[in-house]
Amino acid sequence: MRTVYVNGQYLPETEATVSIFDRGFLMADGVYEVTSVLDGKLIDFDGHAVRLERSLNELDMRAACTKEELLEIHRELVRVNEITEGLIYLQITRGSDGDRDFIFPDPETTKPTIVMFTQNKPGLADSPAAKKGAKIISIEDIRWGRRDIKTVQLLYPSMGKMMAKAAGADDAWLIEDGHVTEGTSNNAYFVKNGKIVTRPLSTDILHGITRKAVLRMAEEAQMEVEERLFTIDEAKEADEAFTTSASAFVMPVVEIDGVVLGDGTPGPIATRLREIYLDESLKAAI
Amino acid sequence: MRTVYVNGQYLPETEATVSIFDRGFLMADGVYEVTSVLDGKLIDFDGHAVRLERSLNELDMRAACTKEELLEIHRELVRVNEITEGLIYLQITRGSDGDRDFIFPDPETTKPTIVMFTQNKPGLADSPAAKKGAKIISIEDIRWGRRDIKTVQLLYPSMGKMMAKAAGADDAWLIEDGHVTEGTSNNAYFVKNGKIVTRPLSTDILHGITRKAVLRMAEEAQMEVEERLFTIDEAKEADEAFTTSASAFVMPVVEIDGVVLGDGTPGPIATRLREIYLDESLKAAI
Repeated sequence: MRTVYVNGQYLPETEATVSIFDRGFLMADGVYEVTSVLDGKLIDFDGHAVRLERSLNELDMRAACTKEELLEIHRELVRVNEITEGLIYLQITRGSDGDRDFIFPDPETTKPTIVMFTQNKPGLADSPAAKKGAKIISIEDIRWGRRDIKTVQLLYPSMGKMMAKAAGADDAWLIEDGHVTEGTSNNAYFVKNGKIVTRPLSTDILHGITRKAVLRMAEEAQMEVEERLFTIDEAKEADEAFTTSASAFVMPVVEIDGVVLGDGTPGPIATRLREIYLDESLKAAI
Repeated sequence: MRTVYVNGQYLPETEATVSIFDRGFLMADGVYEVTSVLDGKLIDFDGHAVRLERSLNELDMRAACTKEELLEIHRELVRVNEITEGLIYLQITRGSDGDRDFIFPDPETTKPTIVMFTQNKPGLADSPAAKKGAKIISIEDIRWGRRDIKTVQLLYPSMGKMMAKAAGADDAWLIEDGHVTEGTSNNAYFVKNGKIVTRPLSTDILHGITRKAVLRMAEEAQMEVEERLFTIDEAKEADEAFTTSASAFVMPVVEIDGVVLGDGTPGPIATRLREIYLDESLKAAI
């Protein structure tokens, strides 16, 4: 039985509830973060805390607690749930004033709701899926326009994963106006002639914490990186491809819409970046 | 203290909760309906029940109960909460299998969550707001692409209402590719030279239950109706404008982006349609 955190209390997971009037439940009026745990330590906690603050600001929401308190709750959840490898999920909503209205409740009287829980994932770093590589399909991107805000409006990403599953694939990349935006829950990259290509930051994609770290590490390793729009056809003709996310780190992509990339195994650049990322992140974990 | 309905139980509103793992809370994986109550009776219950079924089908979700059971719960909530005029809110989510995953849980083992509550709104029919008419602003439509499915992904409509409020207006109309889609929580119309113009049904807009009824009543009253794309500039040059929704019926619009329509009071066609709609709906209420 997991211990989870809800609004100041540590509770057994089966007793963890929110009001039916919570705006997270009624209106998807909430944001979230997922932080990885390796070796019992938090990976890039600062990056997630900074992005959380940005998401809250963009939506005129208040922080539910200080960054220091957040860190303490993260660590306590890792400790009581004995997580060596896994994830910590954090969600903050605009709370509930006890009824339903599109108009935001008064922040002076309505506190945000904060929920956190762990997911135990032994083998997260030494992942069989990463050794095999992912098969992806491409689907239309019909999400809302502010994907830079990490909101809980995740119905379409969820539908996208189901479409991938139905097609015998592992995940989907999203296409808008002829260009790849990103994966359902990760940023997307391809590699051609040694050059890593990925879409530049904008409101069209999530500002991935892992993206930022991996691009920095790629440049430190003298790899060439180009941030530009790209098509799914370019990616299909690539030497290799991969995604990045906080929960899967660097995940090689070996097939796109049925087209096998290279020899159908994880490419050398994705493999190397995964190693570097895990290595450096573990060293910096807190 | 309201009595609300959650998964088979009638509960005091302060005790009504859902699991933090509910997919409605974590992923906006849920749909909703709002049915009006006038004279203690349900307005167009059948229309809402049919649309609910469609929303569920589009998302591969199961019904939480039969239409007959739904009707019974609606009526019981009206009765115990002594609602003469008001609203009944209904939400169904994909439920919770006790953890978070983008992949849908097995519908054989994970039951949908159903939540219902009333909102008491004395004066809903004889509304001062409708006598005054609404001021609206236009904003960009950045919602997801399946607005025909009535999901709880309502963050942007909520932000739109806040933008309107900040601009001293009552509501916002949404613009996509140069054309008005609809209002934040209603369908949009203008009237020019006696002709009612509104956008045709597609995945771009909600298939309003009130829209359908009002268009039928307009035609029965020998009014001319044209369903086509239109710009906000056309609406600003109109003789009058209005919106329709289950909770506000027919709401005259008297100002768009600061441009006063006609003499700045509710137009004759909107006023007449509101009367007809309330009249006929009350007769057919159950």
